[in-house]
This record gives sequence, C-alpha cells and structure tokens, in this order.
Amino acid sequence: MTRDRPVVAVYPGSFDPITKGHEDVVRRSLRLADRVVIAVAHTATQEKGSLFSVEQRLALLEEVFQGEERIECRSFRGLLVDLAREVEARFVIRGLRAVSDFEYEFQMAQMNRELWSGVETVFLTPDQKYSFLSASLVREVARLGGDISRFVPEPVLREMEALFRE
Amino acid sequence: MTRDRPVVAVYPGSFDPITKGHEDVVRRSLRLADRVVIAVAHTATQEKGSLFSVEQRLALLEEVFQGEERIECRSFRGLLVDLAREVEARFVIRGLRAVSDFEYEFQMAQMNRELWSGVETVFLTPDQKYSFLSASLVREVARLGGDISRFVPEPVLREMEALFRE
Amino acid sequence: MTRDRPVVAVYPGSFDPITKGHEDVVRRSLRLADRVVIAVAHTATQEKGSLFSVEQRLALLEEVFQGEERIECRSFRGLLVDLAREVEARFVIRGLRAVSDFEYEFQMAQMNRELWSGVETVFLTPDQKYSFLSASLVREVARLGGDISRFVPEPVLREMEALFRE
Amino acid sequence: MTRDRPVVAVYPGSFDPITKGHEDVVRRSLRLADRVVIAVAHTATQEKGSLFSVEQRLALLEEVFQGEERIECRSFRGLLVDLAREVEARFVIRGLRAVSDFEYEFQMAQMNRELWSGVETVFLTPDQKYSFLSASLVREVARLGGDISRFVPEPVLREMEALFRE
Amino acid sequence: MTRDRPVVAVYPGSFDPITKGHEDVVRRSLRLADRVVIAVAHTATQEKGSLFSVEQRLALLEEVFQGEERIECRSFRGLLVDLAREVEARFVIRGLRAVSDFEYEFQMAQMNRELWSGVETVFLTPDQKYSFLSASLVREVARLGGDISRFVPEPVLREMEALFRE
Amino acid sequence: MTRDRPVVAVYPGSFDPITKGHEDVVRRSLRLADRVVIAVAHTATQEKGSLFSVEQRLALLEEVFQGEERIECRSFRGLLVDLAREVEARFVIRGLRAVSDFEYEFQMAQMNRELWSGVETVFLTPDQKYSFLSASLVREVARLGGDISRFVPEPVLREMEALFRE
Repeated sequence: MTRDRPVVAVYPGSFDPITKGHEDVVRRSLRLADRVVIAVAHTATQEKGSLFSVEQRLALLEEVFQGEERIECRSFRGLLVDLAREVEARFVIRGLRAVSDFEYEFQMAQMNRELWSGVETVFLTPDQKYSFLSASLVREVARLGGDISRFVPEPVLREMEALFRE
Repeated sequence: MTRDRPVVAVYPGSFDPITKGHEDVVRRSLRLADRVVIAVAHTATQEKGSLFSVEQRLALLEEVFQGEERIECRSFRGLLVDLAREVEARFVIRGLRAVSDFEYEFQMAQMNRELWSGVETVFLTPDQKYSFLSASLVREVARLGGDISRFVPEPVLREMEALFRE
Repeated sequence: MTRDRPVVAVYPGSFDPITKGHEDVVRRSLRLADRVVIAVAHTATQEKGSLFSVEQRLALLEEVFQGEERIECRSFRGLLVDLAREVEARFVIRGLRAVSDFEYEFQMAQMNRELWSGVETVFLTPDQKYSFLSASLVREVARLGGDISRFVPEPVLREMEALFRE
Repeated sequence: MTRDRPVVAVYPGSFDPITKGHEDVVRRSLRLADRVVIAVAHTATQEKGSLFSVEQRLALLEEVFQGEERIECRSFRGLLVDLAREVEARFVIRGLRAVSDFEYEFQMAQMNRELWSGVETVFLTPDQKYSFLSASLVREVARLGGDISRFVPEPVLREMEALFRE
Repeated sequence: MTRDRPVVAVYPGSFDPITKGHEDVVRRSLRLADRVVIAVAHTATQEKGSLFSVEQRLALLEEVFQGEERIECRSFRGLLVDLAREVEARFVIRGLRAVSDFEYEFQMAQMNRELWSGVETVFLTPDQKYSFLSASLVREVARLGGDISRFVPEPVLREMEALFRE
Repeated sequence: MTRDRPVVAVYPGSFDPITKGHEDVVRRSLRLADRVVIAVAHTATQEKGSLFSVEQRLALLEEVFQGEERIECRSFRGLLVDLAREVEARFVIRGLRAVSDFEYEFQMAQMNRELWSGVETVFLTPDQKYSFLSASLVREVARLGGDISRFVPEPVLREMEALFRE
C-alpha cells in the first residue's frame, strides 16, 4: 500500500541559477510527494562554463526554500537513477516548457527507465508566466545588464547583482 | 501535510477502447496516488462515432482492473475540473506519447489551471513499446481485419472480435 | 516610398467567437498598419458546426472594436489573396501560439505566396497569458458550463451566456 | 542476395487528387525500386468527402504515369501490410513534408512493423518547392476559384477545371 | 496616429555571413517599415568561433545593401530591447524557417516583451527556396570545399572564396 | 533500368561509438541496397571531443559487421555528396528517431540536393526499442558508470569497458 512510507521525489537539474520557473515546479511537486530532494548535478562540463559553483547553487537553493521542512537540497555525481535508488525516490520530477524540452526529456526518461525500471519520471508544467524562462537566458540577460528581478528568487537576484557589479 | 488524506488522481479520457498503453499509464499512476479514478468522458461528439457506448467502456475498464481496489471507474459529463473537485483529486493524470500530444495536453492543462487553480496536471509516458498506440488506430486496424491482440487487454479483444465478427 | 499610401493589413479568421487572444493580436497589429481589416471567412464548413453566424460574428467584432477608426470588420468568400488584393493590403496578419499553429500557418503562407506574390504574411504572438486560448476551446468550456469571462471580450460573454442559458 | 527478384515498393495514399508533390515522390522512388505500386486506399470515410471516386483517381494516376512501365496503379481495401505482402513489396514509401507528417507517419510505420515485421517504411522528401502542398489544400484552393495549375499534373488540372466549372 | 513618424524596424542577428535567406527577409521587411536597421550582435562567444569579425560583417552588409537608402547597418552590444529603444523601433523582425526556430524565437520574443513591453516581435518567412539555409551550414559547406554561390550574396561569396583559398 | 548495376547506399555518421540503433538501421538498409557503405565523417570538431579516433571507430564497425560482404566501412573528409558521387551511391541513408532529428535531417537533405541533385536521401526508423538511443547519451551513461550492455554491440562494449576501467 502506498502510504506505508513517505513518498519521496527527486528533482534534478543544474540550477545555475534556480529561476522562478524552477521554484514553481518545486512548489507544485510538494503536492505529489511528502518529500522533494532537489539534486544539483555535479558534472565536469557544467563546472567550466557555470556562473555559480555547485556549492553556491546549493546555498542559494537552501536559502530559497528555507523553512520548507519537506525539501532537501543536495548535489550528486553519477547517474540520476543511482541517486533515485539511494534516496528511495518513488519518482523523478521534470518541468516541461516546450516541445524541444519534451523530446530531450522523453529520451532521458526512457534511458532512465532502461537503467532502472524502478524509477518513474513525472512531468509538470510551470505556471504559464514562466514558460519562456530558462537559466541560460537569465544568465545572458544579466550579463547584458538587463533587469532579472522578475525571473529569479530574491537570494539569486542579490548574488547575481553582486557578481555583475564587480 | 500531504499524508492527512489519501492522494486521489483522476485519469480522464474516451477509452474507446482502453488500450494496453492506457493500462500501462494507469498502473504507473498507482505509484503516485493512493487511489486512481478512471473517468470516461460522456460527450455528444464521442457518442456518435464511437465503437462502444460509455456504459460498455466502463464495463470493460472494470473488467480490466478488477481486483485493483485502489482503482475506481466512472463516467462524467461537464468540466474535468468539476469532476476533479468532486472526487477531491490532488492531480489529473495524462499520458504523453508524442509532440502533438504534448501541445494539446499543455493547452488543456493551462486551461484547466485557469478554470481551477486547485488542479495540477501530471504527465506520464507509457512504456516505449506502446508509444505508437492510440485508440483510434486500434479501431482502424480492427475494422480492416488486423490482429489487435498485442494492443488491447483481453476483455477488449474479446468484445472487439465479437463486434467485427458480426 | 512606403509612406505614399496608408499601410493596410488583413487579419483573417473564423472568429467564432473572437477571443481575448484575437483581440490582443488585433491591437498589436495596429502598431504595424495604419488600417486593419478583420475578415471573417464565409465558408460552408464553418457555417455548419458554428456557434454564431457570420453576421453575428461581424456584429460582435464591431462591438468589441467600436471607436477604433483604424479597424474595419467584414466577411469574405473565396481566396484570402483575392481579398488582400481587393483591399490593397500590404500584408496578412496571423497569430502564432504553438508549433502546430506554425506548421499550418507556414503552409498557408507559402500557398498564398504562390497564389499571389504580392502578399506577405506577418506573424505576431499574442500575450503569453492567452497562448493556450482558442475559439474551439472556449466553445467547449462554455458548452460544459465553465466560466469563460477571462477568455472573451465582454460582448461575446454576454451573447454566449444568452446562448447557453437557453 | 538482393538481386534475385525485382525490388517492389508500395506507395499508398488517398491521391484525391494526385499532386505534383506526390508525382515527385513517385519519380524519386523509381531510383530505389524496380517497380512501384501506387495504391489508392479504398475507405468508407474517404469516399464520403472525396472529390474524385477511387476509380477516377486510378484513371488519373494511370494517365499521369502512362508510359512508365515500372509503375503500377491499383486500389486496395484492408490493411496496407496485407497489400504489401500480396505484391511482395520490399518496402512502403511515404513522403515527409513537415513535423506533423513525421509524427503520424512514424506512428503508422511502427504499427505496420507490429502487424508484419516483413515490411519496412522508407521516407522520402519531395522537392522543396512542393513542401507546402497537400491534396486537401489543392481541393480548397480549387473550390475557392484559385489557380491550381502549378500544383497538380495536367490531367488532374483538366478534370478539376471541368468539375468546378459545372 | 501611425503616420506621424517613420516606422523603424530592427533586424538583429549574427550575420556570419549574411545569406540569401537573410537578404530575402530584409527585402520583405522593407514592405513593413520605412527604415530597417540591420543590427549585428557584438558578443564575446560569437567573436571566438566566428568566420568574419563584426566589422567585416558590417562591411559586407553595407556592400550587399548599398544604394538602399532605407536600410542602415550597425553593430550593437547589450540587450536588443535597449537597441530597439535607442533607434525608436516600432518592431523587431525575425525570420522563421522551422519549428526549432519558432520555439527559440518565441522564447526570445516573450523575454524581450518582459524586458520592454514597448517592443513587438514580427516574424517573416523567407522564400521557400531558402528555408534550408543557415549561416552555420553555409560556413560548413564552404570549409569542406562546396559551392556556396547559390546561398550567399556576391560580396560574401568573394570574401569567403578568398578566405578558404588561403 | 535499375538492375544494370548494383544499388549502392551510403550511411554517413560519426559512430562514436556505433550503437545498436545504428546497427539496426544498417541491417534494415541491406533490404534497400545491394551494398551499404558506412562512412565515418572525419572532421576537426569531432576529433576533439571524441571518445574513439576515426580509426578505432572504423575498426569497431568492421568487427561488428564482419562476415557481411555487402557492407563496406570507410572514413571520409569533405562533402557527403562528393563521397556519394565517388562510390556511385544511388542514395544516402539516415535514421530518424524524433522530431528534432527530422528538422536537422530535412535541412541537410535539402542542402545535399542543392549541392548535387544526383543524390537522394532515404530515411529509415530504427526499431522502436532503440528510439531513445544516441551515441552521446551512451557516452554519458558510460562515463557515469552506468551499464551500457543493452545499447551497444559487443565489440563496442568491450572497448568502452576497457576505456572507462582505466
């Protein structure tokens, strides 16, 4: 029976930085799961061109969701399915905004199902007003001096302003 | 807190007839919800060109899922969001197979969110081996005399063979 | 030189009924053209399953845009390119909401260019908050008793409520 | 070894009417096969809203390809895979113009592979200048009085002009 | 009233190099605007892997459009919306060739609308015969020794031949 | 007449490494052609981030298809159409898995047709169970320590295990 142990969900990503779209997906996922593990992928390629280090991203995630006892933030190396198994996740959460998202996500969901049939991928759509948002677009706008206050949570805004003021 | 009352999900559709792809989505949704309400839409247009009546479809769904205490089958008229409210559903479940699915589904999810912000749409992908299946394709193959035994649950196969033997 | 005569644009469609998405596209097109001709297609197929007659749709369009001297509402039979030629339109305006829109629209734009190289199709995107809206979805929600007040201009709401109250 | 018997391909469709895009795909397919069987689907739904009867479409196809000994025109009822088996086809040919084509075609190719693993679907793209063409668009333009001479082979033009002159 | 001041449009891009597809979009945009500002984006990433410097690209654009008094070529740094504001543009012009274009362009149009509601993005489709063209594909074909004379304006051909002859 | 000389097909790609999806496409293409030339593209960019050198990829392809006399493996520099001309290929073979594949492939097919009208591109779809596979995904899973035995032919598995064991 479903209720025997808490329902855990994993929400993986780069979160460089977390946007209001990500935040919206996390809050929606709290409807589906008792506990949501936000997992920052720790990969070589992401480190190179990244804005924030994995540690900084984790600190920002924790600040954004402080007080939310049902949310845990962590980083991971290796396969997502191994992380899902480790935290005994019932499913993986992914946000879908557009067709191109869908194709990549569908491919990943199938690959993960091949790697571990115990994992299910669940897709949520963010609020329409965030459907154009992506972390890379936010980084680009900030680099060009644009106002990103409507696109990122307050702690991210503070850190990005500090970064680009230098 | 999430665990206070059972997590109910609604899985709406025409189910004319239920395919193995639908069945797969239902079984996957049992991982996410304590109870799944399969809801057959009762609309004028579907009645006209339909293969089975809503009552027949319900009877078939009940036969396919008999013994599954966490599944309830019913029909509905009116808005999906009203049904979701009535059964106190935490979310609506939809299967995604292809890009064209995604666009229509995304549009419906946004409309439903506009009609009632209390409803969340959750997308699952069926097993890859069912990604080409649709109820309309199954009906067409059966009408042309093709073998549909790999595409529909046994009770549907029995009824469709009876229908097209006549 | 461009400024010799007023820039006329044609915005064709079924408008059964006009939604707030259509209205948004019309208002944006006033930035591009001196005069916008909203043209209701008068086709056999649309008459049959339609909610409002072409005459009713025209009356509603005129009520929605009353006072806007730069907007003209009319119906047409035959090819869009013939209408464009008749009103001396510099371009045709179409709203784009989604990928499936795009493919159909692109096909039509190419066909129209083949039929008359003098016509150019210009695509605008409605405000994101209307990106899920379509006239057919509005009709369906209204038929099922849903609240459509956020989706259509006030005159349309009044007429649709009258229609479905009966 | 491949060369033991002639390579036969089936090119199925409605061909109501054959367009220059279809004709282009047929001529390209002669590069791949020794013999191409153009097969007009004989279905209840197509009969109703059709412009030409299956017999008329066959006569037009035969006129368009007269003198091409490697092309055979026929109609069929039932499953495409049964026809493919009957004519000992090595593969089925389908034209791809756009993303929406692709999704439907992919679904059909998978279904056909399920129904008979002996059939392979091969996709060709017509010349770019026909990428916007479809039989339904041609019918619509002709109905509205537009010039379709660039879109259909000469025999089709002659018959359509006769039809719409009445 | 629209006619009070000239209608200015901005057509931004990398133009590394300008193709016949870009040229076609510019000429079409002269139908919509009194003045078109072609704006070469001056970004760090484009400089690195680029074929021509921003200065060379500007010189080529000016050569291609010499004699067209209604066209102005310039480079820009920073946000497109800031440029649009500076040149008092009524709208931004973007060419659409394919679905993947559309998704990216739609995202950018929404972001730009968020950054400055005063800007409108207008989409045009190039002539079908250029629908497969992109600057990166032209660069690749030229690098591999292919003939690009049908894909780029004469001045670009001259400079690319000089470049790859070395 | 088609049968005068053997039908040759070229199947170009990076094959870094060959997956079971590629292998499936090759085996299907043997139905269409008397001889299939698998051609490994020899490009600067692929060398840099590649897993295997072009020579290693060729050796693996030859091991996978050893005993298949109708298959030839080779590398190439320059334009695909030049290779096609050199080996007197009747057509180029490409696998299609998804919409995003389709758009890129369609663009390339059109470009190749522009470069040499003598070449035709033929699209095949791999078995559905490989529709999520790509060489880059396989490399990523292997790098993260995942089991790739279901995704690549045995010789590739052996070499990749050796590579990542180091």
